[in-house]
Amino acid sequence: MSTYPRSAKPCLIIGSVAIDRVATPHAQSDNILGGAASYAAIAASYFAPTRLVGVVGADFPKAFLKRLKKHNIDLSGLQVDEQGKTFYWSGRYGENFNRCETLEIQLNVFEKFEPTLPPDYKATPYVMLGAINPSLQHIVLDQVSKESFVLADTRDLWINLALPDLKALLKRVDLFVLNEDEAELLAQEKNLIIAGRKIRQMGPKIVIIKKGSHGSLLFHPDGFFAISAYPVTKFADPTGAGDSYAGALIGYLASVNRSDFAALKRAIAYATACASLTVESFSTDRLERAGRKAIDARLKELIALTKF
Amino acid sequence: MSTYPRSAKPCLIIGSVAIDRVATPHAQSDNILGGAASYAAIAASYFAPTRLVGVVGADFPKAFLKRLKKHNIDLSGLQVDEQGKTFYWSGRYGENFNRCETLEIQLNVFEKFEPTLPPDYKATPYVMLGAINPSLQHIVLDQVSKESFVLADTRDLWINLALPDLKALLKRVDLFVLNEDEAELLAQEKNLIIAGRKIRQMGPKIVIIKKGSHGSLLFHPDGFFAISAYPVTKFADPTGAGDSYAGALIGYLASVNRSDFAALKRAIAYATACASLTVESFSTDRLERAGRKAIDARLKELIALTKF
Repeated sequence: MSTYPRSAKPCLIIGSVAIDRVATPHAQSDNILGGAASYAAIAASYFAPTRLVGVVGADFPKAFLKRLKKHNIDLSGLQVDEQGKTFYWSGRYGENFNRCETLEIQLNVFEKFEPTLPPDYKATPYVMLGAINPSLQHIVLDQVSKESFVLADTRDLWINLALPDLKALLKRVDLFVLNEDEAELLAQEKNLIIAGRKIRQMGPKIVIIKKGSHGSLLFHPDGFFAISAYPVTKFADPTGAGDSYAGALIGYLASVNRSDFAALKRAIAYATACASLTVESFSTDRLERAGRKAIDARLKELIALTKF
Repeated sequence: MSTYPRSAKPCLIIGSVAIDRVATPHAQSDNILGGAASYAAIAASYFAPTRLVGVVGADFPKAFLKRLKKHNIDLSGLQVDEQGKTFYWSGRYGENFNRCETLEIQLNVFEKFEPTLPPDYKATPYVMLGAINPSLQHIVLDQVSKESFVLADTRDLWINLALPDLKALLKRVDLFVLNEDEAELLAQEKNLIIAGRKIRQMGPKIVIIKKGSHGSLLFHPDGFFAISAYPVTKFADPTGAGDSYAGALIGYLASVNRSDFAALKRAIAYATACASLTVESFSTDRLERAGRKAIDARLKELIALTKF
């Protein structure tokens, strides 16, 4: 259980909670805790009080709920639909993890999910919209306070299928996080520096482009920042890396209650550390086991290995 | 003309000096100064007294010699073969610069090139072996002092065609520089952190893996270091980026007469700055025009944009 700094404000994570089956070139794992909100909430919970909004079915294991609660995550926004089954995803990564094939997807209770915030969640000062359909992201935004700092994540799927909705969303969020392929697709620009600037012009004050093992780029009104990735050698499963990255981002910003350039740089470093832990195991296992001490140790290493 | 610090020792660059014709998706340029040694020597000359060993033909423009001399480069090791023509290369980059097709290559005087060092070059304390055939790199090494610090560059071609020679070379050099595709090919390993460590086990004390716009990785006996690339937005032509990178590396190490971890980190930052200038024009134009002040300004920017 973490003790949060006095500056810490609550953060809210909204997104999928799932049961996954993942196969990598080296191993496979079945019936594991998955979903963007699970990864993000666990990462965020290391930094600030964390609220989770999502939906699961009657089959969602009690043990998974217990794990989330163990991290101090407020689950009063997690709907349990006793009539349905939890969102299920099965995927297989190709050699070198450069491609992921979805073998099976059952939306189940997620199909009719209408995110409804408990009344006392509406003024949450830091909000992360996981990479769900932009129309749902809008529905959440309609409920949160205009004062909230909002981070939005996305997927190439929504850039391809829901671009008008996504573009409207960009005008409503403070921080937009996407990976390099998504940035190229959205900006129609191969040069990531130019792409990041273009995406900022679409609305969000702050843009972060994630480049996996090549680190990430920050475009902030007060400047540009580039960070290398943590040098992972025990790569097990990339699932959830981006989600725990975004969760750590919003959690850290909530913990210091700031979104200036210096805070964003530090947040990205913590996000990098959390993502590097996530990829070292299936599911959230390694990230959960790590504890804040291991995260802080990786932050220190990151500072040392990038300083000159 | 640069004034070198009192610590500065001379460095020696050996490699191709060429006349190039380059086409990019946006423009093309003909009869321009090219060749690894040209780029490398100009970059090195910003840091330390620089000696160039190579060969050109009778057709090599006087204006090109003048440009090299203007940078204080000692050309007494540059053979001029009055019977032949200069090495000629014509290449075309595809959309987004991710592939380069060689349209024409005329080895000319380079075909029979046997690098012979002027006697007073043999004790040069810092030596860069450009990415020529490893058998020629060995011939140079046989002539230089055992005390010299030696940097070697290579190409995928030599990994594919001259692996035994290259492997023998790795046991004779201090610093080996290669790009990420070459590292993957040589180490037979996709994870670049593991690849870098594997290549160090092949011989060189120090290994640097260049990742283009994603920065570079340093594997040194005293630690690991990662640096982001300079955020280039006026990308014109990648030709010579790696050569000026390596040239700046050896030049900076010669200028401080050190090869410890701190010196290598600083050298990589200068190499990054020089490469970022090189890609902003055809040939060595931008790198030549820049001057040491512009290089120092980019170094400062790099420090600022990677610090947190």
